[in-house]
Amino acid sequence: MTEIEIGRGKRGRRAYSFDDIAVVPSRRTRDPEEVSVAWQIDAYHFDLPVIGAPMDSVMSPETAIAFGRLGGLPVLDLEGLWTRYEDPAPLLAEIAALGPESATSRMQEIYAEEIKPELISARLKQIRDAGITVAGALSPQRTQEHWKTVVDAGGDLFVIRGTTVSAEHVSGRAEPLNLKRFIYELDVPVIVGGAASYTAALHLMRTGAAGVLVGFGGGAAHTTRLTLGIHAPMASAIADVAAARRDYMDESGGRYVHVIADGGMGRSGEIIKAVACGADAVMLGAALARATEAPGRGYHWGPEAHHQQLPRGERVAVGALGSLEEILLGPGRVADGTTNLIGALKRAMATTGYSDLKEFQRVEVVVAPYQRS
Amino acid sequence: MTEIEIGRGKRGRRAYSFDDIAVVPSRRTRDPEEVSVAWQIDAYHFDLPVIGAPMDSVMSPETAIAFGRLGGLPVLDLEGLWTRYEDPAPLLAEIAALGPESATSRMQEIYAEEIKPELISARLKQIRDAGITVAGALSPQRTQEHWKTVVDAGGDLFVIRGTTVSAEHVSGRAEPLNLKRFIYELDVPVIVGGAASYTAALHLMRTGAAGVLVGFGGGAAHTTRLTLGIHAPMASAIADVAAARRDYMDESGGRYVHVIADGGMGRSGEIIKAVACGADAVMLGAALARATEAPGRGYHWGPEAHHQQLPRGERVAVGALGSLEEILLGPGRVADGTTNLIGALKRAMATTGYSDLKEFQRVEVVVAPYQRS
Amino acid sequence: MTEIEIGRGKRGRRAYSFDDIAVVPSRRTRDPEEVSVAWQIDAYHFDLPVIGAPMDSVMSPETAIAFGRLGGLPVLDLEGLWTRYEDPAPLLAEIAALGPESATSRMQEIYAEEIKPELISARLKQIRDAGITVAGALSPQRTQEHWKTVVDAGGDLFVIRGTTVSAEHVSGRAEPLNLKRFIYELDVPVIVGGAASYTAALHLMRTGAAGVLVGFGGGAAHTTRLTLGIHAPMASAIADVAAARRDYMDESGGRYVHVIADGGMGRSGEIIKAVACGADAVMLGAALARATEAPGRGYHWGPEAHHQQLPRGERVAVGALGSLEEILLGPGRVADGTTNLIGALKRAMATTGYSDLKEFQRVEVVVAPYQRS
Amino acid sequence: MTEIEIGRGKRGRRAYSFDDIAVVPSRRTRDPEEVSVAWQIDAYHFDLPVIGAPMDSVMSPETAIAFGRLGGLPVLDLEGLWTRYEDPAPLLAEIAALGPESATSRMQEIYAEEIKPELISARLKQIRDAGITVAGALSPQRTQEHWKTVVDAGGDLFVIRGTTVSAEHVSGRAEPLNLKRFIYELDVPVIVGGAASYTAALHLMRTGAAGVLVGFGGGAAHTTRLTLGIHAPMASAIADVAAARRDYMDESGGRYVHVIADGGMGRSGEIIKAVACGADAVMLGAALARATEAPGRGYHWGPEAHHQQLPRGERVAVGALGSLEEILLGPGRVADGTTNLIGALKRAMATTGYSDLKEFQRVEVVVAPYQRS
Repeated sequence: MTEIEIGRGKRGRRAYSFDDIAVVPSRRTRDPEEVSVAWQIDAYHFDLPVIGAPMDSVMSPETAIAFGRLGGLPVLDLEGLWTRYEDPAPLLAEIAALGPESATSRMQEIYAEEIKPELISARLKQIRDAGITVAGALSPQRTQEHWKTVVDAGGDLFVIRGTTVSAEHVSGRAEPLNLKRFIYELDVPVIVGGAASYTAALHLMRTGAAGVLVGFGGGAAHTTRLTLGIHAPMASAIADVAAARRDYMDESGGRYVHVIADGGMGRSGEIIKAVACGADAVMLGAALARATEAPGRGYHWGPEAHHQQLPRGERVAVGALGSLEEILLGPGRVADGTTNLIGALKRAMATTGYSDLKEFQRVEVVVAPYQRS
Repeated sequence: MTEIEIGRGKRGRRAYSFDDIAVVPSRRTRDPEEVSVAWQIDAYHFDLPVIGAPMDSVMSPETAIAFGRLGGLPVLDLEGLWTRYEDPAPLLAEIAALGPESATSRMQEIYAEEIKPELISARLKQIRDAGITVAGALSPQRTQEHWKTVVDAGGDLFVIRGTTVSAEHVSGRAEPLNLKRFIYELDVPVIVGGAASYTAALHLMRTGAAGVLVGFGGGAAHTTRLTLGIHAPMASAIADVAAARRDYMDESGGRYVHVIADGGMGRSGEIIKAVACGADAVMLGAALARATEAPGRGYHWGPEAHHQQLPRGERVAVGALGSLEEILLGPGRVADGTTNLIGALKRAMATTGYSDLKEFQRVEVVVAPYQRS
Repeated sequence: MTEIEIGRGKRGRRAYSFDDIAVVPSRRTRDPEEVSVAWQIDAYHFDLPVIGAPMDSVMSPETAIAFGRLGGLPVLDLEGLWTRYEDPAPLLAEIAALGPESATSRMQEIYAEEIKPELISARLKQIRDAGITVAGALSPQRTQEHWKTVVDAGGDLFVIRGTTVSAEHVSGRAEPLNLKRFIYELDVPVIVGGAASYTAALHLMRTGAAGVLVGFGGGAAHTTRLTLGIHAPMASAIADVAAARRDYMDESGGRYVHVIADGGMGRSGEIIKAVACGADAVMLGAALARATEAPGRGYHWGPEAHHQQLPRGERVAVGALGSLEEILLGPGRVADGTTNLIGALKRAMATTGYSDLKEFQRVEVVVAPYQRS
Repeated sequence: MTEIEIGRGKRGRRAYSFDDIAVVPSRRTRDPEEVSVAWQIDAYHFDLPVIGAPMDSVMSPETAIAFGRLGGLPVLDLEGLWTRYEDPAPLLAEIAALGPESATSRMQEIYAEEIKPELISARLKQIRDAGITVAGALSPQRTQEHWKTVVDAGGDLFVIRGTTVSAEHVSGRAEPLNLKRFIYELDVPVIVGGAASYTAALHLMRTGAAGVLVGFGGGAAHTTRLTLGIHAPMASAIADVAAARRDYMDESGGRYVHVIADGGMGRSGEIIKAVACGADAVMLGAALARATEAPGRGYHWGPEAHHQQLPRGERVAVGALGSLEEILLGPGRVADGTTNLIGALKRAMATTGYSDLKEFQRVEVVVAPYQRS
């Protein structure tokens, strides 16, 4: 690992974003129709290696069901509007209508409403009743308070998601969530993150997690680089965590923890690069928020956008480009990587001669930074 | 070959685009009038090292004839409008008049029309009757279906062109094109590509091809980096394939396979850099689509733009800057590298002291990325 | 220290700016509420590691008092409007109303007025009477003339600030300021700079200074890279000077000289990176000029902007975003790193698992240049 | 000298432009008033190390005289309007009034007029009569035809200038200029260039030239990178040629050939970087074309802009910012590096502790690319 001397007193690694790299074709090609993008985590099989991000602009109970039927794994944010309000529709409409100058402060108000356990149960039941894999996300801070509600409601998969989630959280005020014990005692598989480095991910893998979310503020709606100076360029982060997966598999005697890229994949090209760097699956936010069915109504935001003290994200306009099905499976009607995401993934795999996702993680890439014009 | 660690689990080479490099003058200079840019492939001699790209916006039978008379090698797209429609003129006019929002979907409709073998024959005959070298292009998928029509129509050169063409295509559905056997059995020389790496090109050279097209989505009308995450920076790709040419010449006991840069050369500076990196000739699309005679009428697009499921290119406005002759041979009336392409090539060779294209492949270059303002 | 060959006759180091680097999370996290950002220099304790830059657009006696009450260390420019004019308010209003074409020349006129020692005394007394730590800044050229006035007025800390201040100034015309003797004889601690390299900072540390300002023309209002070709990318400069602090501590038997980043920190992310590179505290200009109370009334400028012969800075519009308290302590109402600077610093420290500033200087960083879109 | 592998078949050096580097302060500072920028070449002394570029937009006989009186060395283009037309004033006015679409072609017409030897004599006599050092420039192609006229008119210095001038020009049509014999036989010192590499410059030095112009298409009005793909990043080119100066001094037993940076120095920062890389003096075009007295009347162009076959430059609008004196010596009224060029040079030298130009060639620089916002 080569380190760069920033100055005499500080060194750092060079890290690469999706924009810095590109996949290159090899000597073999293949028919796109014969490529498989199926994904399995624990006992759950999915036709598509795509998780719907637990964000109010992306996943409502209805879009979760639609998304699940198309073959992906939907995750509902259990700290979002759907568990704070009986009927969030008017609020979603209001958010979409806010002017840019008042968006942040009004969202701070809307999200000040408290979470209601009975709504957690009701929302998950609605998804379960539709026959879709049930997955909800909580932040580490609220996992202890609400996890039992989730389990009682029949959650199949449990997601613990924050900008940075560590296996070792230090707090003097309260007993912090002991991830290792929590996951050990829980019956359902847990996906946890974000993690953005080899070490952080390795520690999360040791907690017994079934999957690790890789990312930190890479998403379209984050401003963490400006506000916190923190940034984890995704290509490097995924490649690092993929190495942790390999090393942990060795140290654990064969446990395979899934590496799930989370953030910065607004276009199909970036999904493809995520897998090329080692991801098993991707969690999509903005890319799905562009669906006409998406609850965000052309807008997208994350929990950072309404933090009460330190908002670190914005409500961004993403438009409504086509149906969820067109966005995932095509046919594409525009050529900018925002529709037919899975078709593009299959074609990239075929063009480079690979037939499944695990193989495609070995595809050749080059470092070639470029500027979007 | 130095590799960069993207992250612990992934390495990749640094690759360079035309914008990353520049030619540098040496200690000798020469008169531009005494420089030769002649090019010969197989038995065919051309005054200019330029192939007209098989794209509907660039080459019609008429522009093919005009281009051939100016000294270049025109290639007609045998899967384009000219072999689908008896009279494509109204459709070309319609495409040029489409609004941006409907361009992709209307082109998908227009190109859904089937290819007619009798039109292949008629179009090639028209070019042959004008005394111009006859060359037509097919995709690998359709070569088996139509190649005999092309040969019967008296094709001199055969072009098999796709974004990525490999010597080893895997397909479970049908017998894929066996390039080696096909080329061996065919009487006419074959130019085949795109290839974007040393290995891919070496395998194509071993099929017996007379020339290899170097490129993948580098053209003005492609969006493959956004949609597929695939990108082959042209300076590196050409230099790699030039090394394959040298190594194949050694392994084959002297067979010289031509390296033809294909894509990303919208201005004369890029044509010059392509040769400096090792190209024997260049295939031009957008640069020729700017001619007043070009069938695109100020617009340019490739087959990716009307893919039925996954469009990966756009119809781009390139304008109509001057006659085909002015664009190729001058005199230049603007100073931006879009006219007098050959004059610029000759002057660059003279300024650096080289007298023919093969020598100029050895010119010194520097790596000096810059931003177009 | 790796050097790059610019050409055969010249070599230079690669230097990095804040935009070139980013902080990366580690394996541990922490509660933001349990993080300390306290800072102590000599006998003076501050709740915030922030110095208010001695610039007329940032610090008036009133804002100095307000800023001190919030926990920072205000420094008044003793060569600014407050010591040249009995009542600068009308002039500040006029500057804010100037058109861009006349701003520089009118400011040259306004600042041609001479400095009045009695106003130095009065302004410092006003701050002292409010119970705030008293600190004023002079340029090296005027320190000999006015230092006694400052000391007599009860200055607690003395700041000698210029774009570049060296321990060894050569002048044939007059006896230059002997920093070493001056600081030795002075009773109050001295902060001195800018210094932008290891050697320059080490020499300043040897003069007995309590703190060294790191920077040269990095601020929002400077144009020194365009005008003088001089630039000290901040990340590298701070890391270099932090190494000088460590080496000087060793050579002096334990004297700890504070490293204070000065310039280029308009957003919280940059403050955080400054500490990550080794800064003990930061001197803020533009970031504080955005306060509604700031004397600049939405504009910001430094002494370079009104140089009589060679203006090297401009009056820049920064707007008035919120109260000084909101800017420093939040709550944030925008997500772009301009409000709740200290909240962001605490969160970045918590997210990466550090509990005080000295520890946070060791946080991992990556080199990952990016473009602000 | 580290080389980069562009691809397997091609290597190239990394080269740096002025924008890639910056001067850094050292441990010593100095009074700007005590800095000398005097320059002497052969028997001629100049207060300023600045040559006025032989371009019609910069130097007329009148501005040559004014520029000489301010301390610089003016050079008149002997192939420009002043030697083609008895009264070029109406044509200069017409050029300044041309619309962008017709500028290139109308200039091609205007410059088609032939050169008149009697006007060469008359223009140089006018300068001589004013007591200013007389210097005129010819291209290598026309030097044999006109040099005697120049010498007879009492030229003090002779400039042979082209985009690339080599010591070894190959031509089958006519006997090319033998630079070595020409310079040996001529009584007056010769400045010759452009050269952009160590080898090219070394060969020019061996012809007996007193000075070498360093550059190729770096100027504001060139488009050679787009049109010819040729580019010589100035920082690297100057540093290379400075090394040739040192090596030639050794091989010649002490002959010092002046290195004159030519192109890309539109602002004072770039002049300063040129000297920092090893230049003895600078030849300025656009920077002087901004003077209210400049013949270009707010526009600037070079001979490439009116090439009859292959224009490789444009008429660019530079505005009229202030008098020639303000531009060179100040006082500055704007802060963007376009006025008080010499004041800025002196201050940069003082800030880094150097007292003359030769010393300042050793100043420390860093590599720190940046984007002009």
